Amino acid sequence: MAISARNQLKGRIVSIETGEIMAHVTIRVGKNLIESVITRRSAEALDLKKGDEVTAFMKSTSVMILK
Amino acid sequence: MAISARNQLKGRIVSIETGEIMAHVTIRVGKNLIESVITRRSAEALDLKKGDEVTAFMKSTSVMILK
Amino acid sequence: MAISARNQLKGRIVSIETGEIMAHVTIRVGKNLIESVITRRSAEALDLKKGDEVTAFMKSTSVMILK
Amino acid sequence: MAISARNQLKGRIVSIETGEIMAHVTIRVGKNLIESVITRRSAEALDLKKGDEVTAFMKSTSVMILK
Amino acid sequence: MAISARNQLKGRIVSIETGEIMAHVTIRVGKNLIESVITRRSAEALDLKKGDEVTAFMKSTSVMILK
Amino acid sequence: MAISARNQLKGRIVSIETGEIMAHVTIRVGKNLIESVITRRSAEALDLKKGDEVTAFMKSTSVMILK
Repeated sequence: MAISARNQLKGRIVSIETGEIMAHVTIRVGKNLIESVITRRSAEALDLKKGDEVTAFMKSTSVMILK
Repeated sequence: MAISARNQLKGRIVSIETGEIMAHVTIRVGKNLIESVITRRSAEALDLKKGDEVTAFMKSTSVMILK
Repeated sequence: MAISARNQLKGRIVSIETGEIMAHVTIRVGKNLIESVITRRSAEALDLKKGDEVTAFMKSTSVMILK
Repeated sequence: MAISARNQLKGRIVSIETGEIMAHVTIRVGKNLIESVITRRSAEALDLKKGDEVTAFMKSTSVMILK
Repeated sequence: MAISARNQLKGRIVSIETGEIMAHVTIRVGKNLIESVITRRSAEALDLKKGDEVTAFMKSTSVMILK
Repeated sequence: MAISARNQLKGRIVSIETGEIMAHVTIRVGKNLIESVITRRSAEALDLKKGDEVTAFMKSTSVMILK
């Protein structure tokens, strides 16, 4: 199975904070921290826990550049 | 100056491909390649070139998780 | 493997139009047509062709409502 | 009145869950459920209720493909 | 008819540049220029022309802040 | 420092509402109000307060058109 989103970063969850509707997930990828905000329902459906190995991914059109 | 987008990844441009309207920029960040699609006009306004040190950034709400 | 994007619609590709940087893919999902714009590179990497069975997916935060 | 977003799916709201800032709206579209996360203020401004006929819409650039 | 996107800016199209897949539309809103990239098909379906009065709109979750 | 997002609107914060995970920030830009939903953490990291001069910005690919 392959997905069209070209940015796929393997890492490990270092924290999850869950609200009523949304959840804020922080993932260590190499020396960087990637933060993802998804629905609480998705966090529960995927049973995300601290320490899980996951892949953070994002569409190329979502990525901006600062120079 | 600070921006609200929580994901900011420093890297170096390894390639730029430019079309009529859009440009596809590839940035090396550690061991990963990050791909960004921006407008051709932005690529020109920032004078992006292979080898430039840049920061790729994206909003947390744009980041999804695969487990 | 599971992804956090809650909207996942199974369908069949009815057309692909490819430009220099982007590709416009149309997918029949039940009675609806779903249109997706991805990079040309993704369309090639996934070897997308008319008739392919695929899943169109999008983050809940990308979906708006008209009433 | 017409909008540029090419994906417009007519359906009926089956549930709304409201938090402090965001609201999670689920819409039945044919055999699929579409989930939309909008601001609580938008949900109130549109007076969204279970059973409402609405159109879920999303930009083509927000749609990804899994194959 | 109302849409959930909370940012709706009335203006007038000052230029349209059309590529194979995408179109780049510039809209004058008060003293600002708003730039929108949509599909070429949408630009044609809405028959967008220089001088048209339109509303540029975007979801609150797409807006970032620089301070 | 320059960013690739082509829409950059200078204004002043008129209100901030903060939830567990997200924050809803309203910014006056000329005669318009721009609403931005960012993470609570970003709102705190930037120390956003009513009255602050800020720039709201968004990618061109996030902007849609209604005619």
